[in-house]
Amino acid sequence: MSQQAEHSLVVQAEPLTIFCERAFRAAGVPGEDATITAEVLVAANLRGIDSHGVARLRRYVNGLRQAVMCPRPEVRIVHDTPFAALVDGGGGLGQPIGVRAMRLAIAKAETHGVGFVAVRNSNHYGIAGYYAMMALEHDLIGLSLTNSGPYVVPTFGREAILGTNPISVAVPTSQERPFVLDMSTAVTTLGTLEVYNRRGHKLLPGWASNAQGEPTTSPDEVLRNLADRKGGGIMPLGGMGEEHGGHKGYGLSLLVDILCGVLPGAGYLDDIYLKDEAGHPLPANVGHFFGALRVDLFRPLPDFRATMDTFIQRLKSSAKAKGQSRIFIHGEKEFEMAERRQREGIPLSPKVVASLRQIAVELDMEFGLG
Amino acid sequence: MSQQAEHSLVVQAEPLTIFCERAFRAAGVPGEDATITAEVLVAANLRGIDSHGVARLRRYVNGLRQAVMCPRPEVRIVHDTPFAALVDGGGGLGQPIGVRAMRLAIAKAETHGVGFVAVRNSNHYGIAGYYAMMALEHDLIGLSLTNSGPYVVPTFGREAILGTNPISVAVPTSQERPFVLDMSTAVTTLGTLEVYNRRGHKLLPGWASNAQGEPTTSPDEVLRNLADRKGGGIMPLGGMGEEHGGHKGYGLSLLVDILCGVLPGAGYLDDIYLKDEAGHPLPANVGHFFGALRVDLFRPLPDFRATMDTFIQRLKSSAKAKGQSRIFIHGEKEFEMAERRQREGIPLSPKVVASLRQIAVELDMEFGLG
Repeated sequence: MSQQAEHSLVVQAEPLTIFCERAFRAAGVPGEDATITAEVLVAANLRGIDSHGVARLRRYVNGLRQAVMCPRPEVRIVHDTPFAALVDGGGGLGQPIGVRAMRLAIAKAETHGVGFVAVRNSNHYGIAGYYAMMALEHDLIGLSLTNSGPYVVPTFGREAILGTNPISVAVPTSQERPFVLDMSTAVTTLGTLEVYNRRGHKLLPGWASNAQGEPTTSPDEVLRNLADRKGGGIMPLGGMGEEHGGHKGYGLSLLVDILCGVLPGAGYLDDIYLKDEAGHPLPANVGHFFGALRVDLFRPLPDFRATMDTFIQRLKSSAKAKGQSRIFIHGEKEFEMAERRQREGIPLSPKVVASLRQIAVELDMEFGLG
Repeated sequence: MSQQAEHSLVVQAEPLTIFCERAFRAAGVPGEDATITAEVLVAANLRGIDSHGVARLRRYVNGLRQAVMCPRPEVRIVHDTPFAALVDGGGGLGQPIGVRAMRLAIAKAETHGVGFVAVRNSNHYGIAGYYAMMALEHDLIGLSLTNSGPYVVPTFGREAILGTNPISVAVPTSQERPFVLDMSTAVTTLGTLEVYNRRGHKLLPGWASNAQGEPTTSPDEVLRNLADRKGGGIMPLGGMGEEHGGHKGYGLSLLVDILCGVLPGAGYLDDIYLKDEAGHPLPANVGHFFGALRVDLFRPLPDFRATMDTFIQRLKSSAKAKGQSRIFIHGEKEFEMAERRQREGIPLSPKVVASLRQIAVELDMEFGLG
């Protein structure tokens, strides 16, 4: 590893994907699983969600090397009916488990109209939207939910025992871009807190609480308390208390955890990403929930697609607030970013470049990205 | 009608239900439909959601008398498969249409594991939670969504073209009370704005925008602009802009409208509750979406119920924020209120008592409530 300060790089999606794929293979992940995981990571970078992109390769490689994530898991369908299944991921990487589970939901929906697959014993699966969007190629409505590590505090509480528990739903259209909702159920993200901390900015009111469960605007305090599990953390969507609907974000977070944690028998609340007595991480036991739904159960697909276009056009053509020039549909910014980054490449920060270079050294691989 | 100032009353649920039932019958609604509608209204009062209770009887009676709502609709199953159906409500009252559609979803789920019913050509159906909770008696997870009149402004917009579009999900438990999420996807309600206006209070920042789409704290301004469709209105859950996640509430609102409006071919966005050129209301063409899901598609019901209890107990026993003594699970406050009001009766404000008394006069009924 170079001792000099690392520079930023702009890398095309294809070589970046190949780099990640080689890294996963070198860490013991077989053929298609390595390809899928690399693709999901780079898809996040393409869509501008860099927090869920190759910046996370470090954690996956560590997880695999420490045997917290299983490179060759035994993935089992525990229970199967024509339109629903329970899958045990065997402690493998979340991405190949998620892609296979979503494929199963899609196959069920194509045959029977609807498909639901709940998953237990998995790991972080990257961006929720990747799986929901898989349904679009089959003209289906797609649903993807996951629970996650506990950083969020319930309304009136002071322990961070909720995940950021995202909800993603993708809906096909005709000429317009698909509707792709992909949102955490928290008011902000851990990544945003880290950015504010690095820049020395104060947090916005309503974003986070301190160890006593009171409002704070210090990102450093919140991040330290979260690391030490001292109390406080990020607020649910809607902020602190009930006046701005914080109990609604809290409720949506519980709903995701019920479907991803309780229903498949996975970890839930803070009974996830546990550590042993020596402080070493145990298998995370993350849970996911996937769904696919055929539109023509209710209405002919061409009619639905055409109405979706009209729906979107009405929204986009509605009057703008003073100072605003555009109303966005969910997924639109990410589709535009992906087009741009496919053309112009993906910018990687010096920190991410350094982590990838270090991974190459550890896994005895050529770096080859610049 | 008495010319004297009206007094408040406390009325038991049963006579209040009978009063509403008689009113619906007198307005031409037949047998069970009148009973169902009365029950759904009084259920809202029992649960403490007075904005959706008998205070709305006036609007329903007016709707029926003005033939905007059809007292004896032809309700048709337009399209039917083993686990999904599209229902046309024939412009009838939302409550009997909703109850029948949810019964259909439940029957499908009991037979096939899952049931979805989308509804078009309906009306305001009261509290979303009523229908989701119907699933609990059958040990099913219940889902109830509806679109609604446009009071909410999309992120970066200034036209109120979104409904408050609620989401309700009910989940069975064992010893603990069921989880019953019943939330609008807006940051606050029209009813709250009206209360703040009457009391001369300023709105909280982030709740509403003025005609230019800028922040305002004047409830009077917002209510007048909404009535005159001059621009501005209530913000989505998450507030104005994207910093507190307003785009997430906006996205959830769109999701509800896609499933309730676009999917069944009902009205959507501001193409709902339309008026004719003379300003008279046209049939509202509200849409709903109902679902029911069997837990044992994934996991044995007793295991699921027991884990739900543990899940809830972990939440409720987690440490409280300074100054707070209790963490609530969704539905809990409403169950406790319903128990109290079943015992002690339902308080009706002077304004509501006056409206019920006036309805009795108009429909040539005995008032009989005090």
